[in-house]
Amino acid sequence: MNSRAAPTVPVPPPVLAALVEFLGAPTPSGWIDAAADPAALPTLLVDHANCEKKAASTALAMLFRYEDHDALTERLSRLAREELRHFEQVRQLMRRREIEWRRVPASRYAAGLAAAVRKAEPGRLVDRLVVGAFIEARSCERFALLAPRLDAELGRFYAGLLASEARHFQHYLELARGFAGDELDARIGEIRAIENALATEYDTELRFHSGPPS
Amino acid sequence: MNSRAAPTVPVPPPVLAALVEFLGAPTPSGWIDAAADPAALPTLLVDHANCEKKAASTALAMLFRYEDHDALTERLSRLAREELRHFEQVRQLMRRREIEWRRVPASRYAAGLAAAVRKAEPGRLVDRLVVGAFIEARSCERFALLAPRLDAELGRFYAGLLASEARHFQHYLELARGFAGDELDARIGEIRAIENALATEYDTELRFHSGPPS
Repeated sequence: MNSRAAPTVPVPPPVLAALVEFLGAPTPSGWIDAAADPAALPTLLVDHANCEKKAASTALAMLFRYEDHDALTERLSRLAREELRHFEQVRQLMRRREIEWRRVPASRYAAGLAAAVRKAEPGRLVDRLVVGAFIEARSCERFALLAPRLDAELGRFYAGLLASEARHFQHYLELARGFAGDELDARIGEIRAIENALATEYDTELRFHSGPPS
Repeated sequence: MNSRAAPTVPVPPPVLAALVEFLGAPTPSGWIDAAADPAALPTLLVDHANCEKKAASTALAMLFRYEDHDALTERLSRLAREELRHFEQVRQLMRRREIEWRRVPASRYAAGLAAAVRKAEPGRLVDRLVVGAFIEARSCERFALLAPRLDAELGRFYAGLLASEARHFQHYLELARGFAGDELDARIGEIRAIENALATEYDTELRFHSGPPS
């Protein structure tokens, strides 16, 4: 077996099915082809490290805001720790490959989703959790799509991250269910429409959560 | 042996000596007596949880600000993960003891130290790292002082945190040395004077990093 052979991706089928259904629109092939191009790797890895860092700080910001909720804060704290661990892993992988850190501005994706979050509580908390679920679900879908197209080391790493992202998706969604009323499914539908546009319409730059580059 | 007996505190003597010398002024007995009073425990634990959370967010803020420094960001990321783990442990301990979360405003300590941080780089980074070293060192000293005065479970927990805090103190100081020039010792002296006043002069409320309550 060639050591550079791409691994198969071990995704638990029911979780992946739930996640794909939750996402709605799949990632377009134009994004996959652009992201699997080896020339895109340095940008993609820096952006990935930035996303893990941002995911940790978003969880921490919620932990500060909702500090009186016991189960929520503990869940967010564990989640932030995992994102930080991934951040360290991406930076270590970059160092091994001598990929230097560079400034990679964020894509429109997270800001576009943040803009959809309602200002008033308790809708604000529900929306932040739903947005969290979408970001984790989209990350998971894209890791699954990319892993077989990358070299063996990176493929294994991305396949390994899948399980975490799938768990985070489930945790965010469970938390949202705990705080939301009957309006949850309608709200998920509204945020899905925004997420799908951000993830599938042509984008100015290639990023981990961008649309296909135009 | 009585299961509620206070444990002895396993502090590596050279580390403790370095830390006590770094701190300068020891914590006054008035603070120890007030903090060891069982009636103070709920406030102290909530404040402790808040401090761990704040330590994590401070490390994360530096990680964002200095994202181009490889070794610094990885160190800060691991440090933030440990602080978050401690946050979860304090919250779990509170839950077991049925101590409910309540709003406990921060003491003057961290804000007083933050006010001493220079605005312009590279002094700003050095000062933030030195302040980090002082906060970790003072935490370590106070855990060591408190552990033998608390009940067995809490004593063991605080004794266990000592090693982490001592390591964090060393890491912050090493990082400061890496970024500072010849002015480091003078700057440590200036920040020490501010820290010592904040930690030893009478304070309005008892907190983990407060002066003795007046």
